[in-house]
Amino acid sequence: MIRIGILGYGNLGRGVECAVKQNEDMELCGVFTRRNPDCVHILTKNIPVRPVSELPDCQNEIDVLIICGGSATDLPVQTPEYVKYFNVVDSFDTHAKIPEHFAHVDQAAKASGKIGMISVGWDPGMFSLNRVYANAILPAGKDYTFWGKGVSQGHSDAIRRIEGVTDAKQYTIPVPSSLEAVRNGDTPELTTRQKHTRECFVVAEEGADLDRIEKAIKEMPNYFADYDTTVHFISQEELDKNHSGIPHGGFVIRSGSSGWENEHRHIIEYSLKLDSNPEFTASVLAAYARAAYRMNQEGMSGCKTVFDVAPAYLCSQSNEQLRKHML
Amino acid sequence: MIRIGILGYGNLGRGVECAVKQNEDMELCGVFTRRNPDCVHILTKNIPVRPVSELPDCQNEIDVLIICGGSATDLPVQTPEYVKYFNVVDSFDTHAKIPEHFAHVDQAAKASGKIGMISVGWDPGMFSLNRVYANAILPAGKDYTFWGKGVSQGHSDAIRRIEGVTDAKQYTIPVPSSLEAVRNGDTPELTTRQKHTRECFVVAEEGADLDRIEKAIKEMPNYFADYDTTVHFISQEELDKNHSGIPHGGFVIRSGSSGWENEHRHIIEYSLKLDSNPEFTASVLAAYARAAYRMNQEGMSGCKTVFDVAPAYLCSQSNEQLRKHML
Repeated sequence: MIRIGILGYGNLGRGVECAVKQNEDMELCGVFTRRNPDCVHILTKNIPVRPVSELPDCQNEIDVLIICGGSATDLPVQTPEYVKYFNVVDSFDTHAKIPEHFAHVDQAAKASGKIGMISVGWDPGMFSLNRVYANAILPAGKDYTFWGKGVSQGHSDAIRRIEGVTDAKQYTIPVPSSLEAVRNGDTPELTTRQKHTRECFVVAEEGADLDRIEKAIKEMPNYFADYDTTVHFISQEELDKNHSGIPHGGFVIRSGSSGWENEHRHIIEYSLKLDSNPEFTASVLAAYARAAYRMNQEGMSGCKTVFDVAPAYLCSQSNEQLRKHML
Repeated sequence: MIRIGILGYGNLGRGVECAVKQNEDMELCGVFTRRNPDCVHILTKNIPVRPVSELPDCQNEIDVLIICGGSATDLPVQTPEYVKYFNVVDSFDTHAKIPEHFAHVDQAAKASGKIGMISVGWDPGMFSLNRVYANAILPAGKDYTFWGKGVSQGHSDAIRRIEGVTDAKQYTIPVPSSLEAVRNGDTPELTTRQKHTRECFVVAEEGADLDRIEKAIKEMPNYFADYDTTVHFISQEELDKNHSGIPHGGFVIRSGSSGWENEHRHIIEYSLKLDSNPEFTASVLAAYARAAYRMNQEGMSGCKTVFDVAPAYLCSQSNEQLRKHML
């Protein structure tokens, strides 16, 4: 059994708890929190919630610590810190800062002899993997990534900060005609507006100026100004009833060619349709926790990404079983 | 530069030649054939076509030999033989015999200190990889593989063997409603008939009994009897004009669930739409040739499959570049 610790118990931490339950070779041995442990109630029975301060004393209890903090301020500190004690996995997703995060984690992980697996999830993560495989196979080609239909937390938050808005949910939606063009083997240059639309469900204060709010949303730089945006004003009840989920997904497509004169076209497409973004991310984290454990058992250490992990390490089955049943 | 040798120059070997041209870190250094080399004309200028008997003398000229023979009789002999001299890659695709082939290649490769990469292509190959990733991420779920729309060489050959048939092409086609049901998160149990249909384009001898031929096709055990099959009789000209390509493709879908009570559904889908089946397979072979070379440079040896290869080995870019641009 691989003994899993969870650091941080929000949506992602709870998702990891669920994922561990589904993996028969894993057991949860502790949830660690910066909050008052008495106020954190987890789903698993008879497993303690403990203060994060106790983590360094748990080296003999935990094989892999899955760090479920945020990329902005938590992970840059937590991942290099806890890889001193444990194999760790995180979902660091600030694309531009990955090289810096990698360097910090690599240094600490090499010193401790542990594995620090970073940027695990679906983007970065499974989407990145599919970009790499498709590029390696079809060096002559063009990549497309579409996100959605799904909830963007950042865009929903941005709407909520507008005066007169009490609640909001924003969906990112791929433009069907662009997706279709790419699938059909065209290789269009797509602008931001041609790739995605944004649909907003907004709860306004009573008496608020709805025209002003809609204008504020649609003209918001970076978030909405470059997109075709639709705004629906609805009641809090309707928002709670129809928009409480956290679905997401998307498409990674490579359109490439082969042949002596590049005369044959090939479309490689990977897509995800997810009812729960955090639970799916958590499921990927659990699989890579298994890989971190096994790779460390074989003597490897240092910072790793999904690019460094041979697929067989992710599976509970033996290599013989995989070859026999999955190849 | 990675020096590539090609053994066997049919559709697949020619595809590898084209793929090597697309990869800037590779160079073709020889095509080897069992035929009379004077009768084999390749696309690359100034590269010799040589008899297969000269292969053992080329150890210092070739980094990776890509073996482009058939799975029935060629590869079981060739791959264990030539891994004595070179890193090799093959596309062995007889699923049931993979464990046996693996054992033979592994023994020879460990003795020679080379890498023998087997069963590379898209199925087995990229489809297998996607099954493994999706199963590792979503242990609770169900796998679906659909093939097509594409040409099945085996089924086309079977039709051609019927008396009165001069030529034929058979397409395997996924049943759209079944594909849609799986994509929508249903997890149906699908019979053979519910998964694929078969469409045949047949050229008959003048005066042949078309009803008899159609009946012989539709009732052919294993090949057609379990499917809804459509037969079109057309002229040789029409066959040559509209059905001379070798397109293929398919879909690997895992429909799985997450959550404490499996309450959230996730669909992972990987699909290929290929203008040229052999050229795409060849492109995968070339990428794995790079991996075989690099893994051997790092001291690894033995038989490997796609499950054993970390994705970074497939790419010409450095690990730093991959993390910066692809993660």
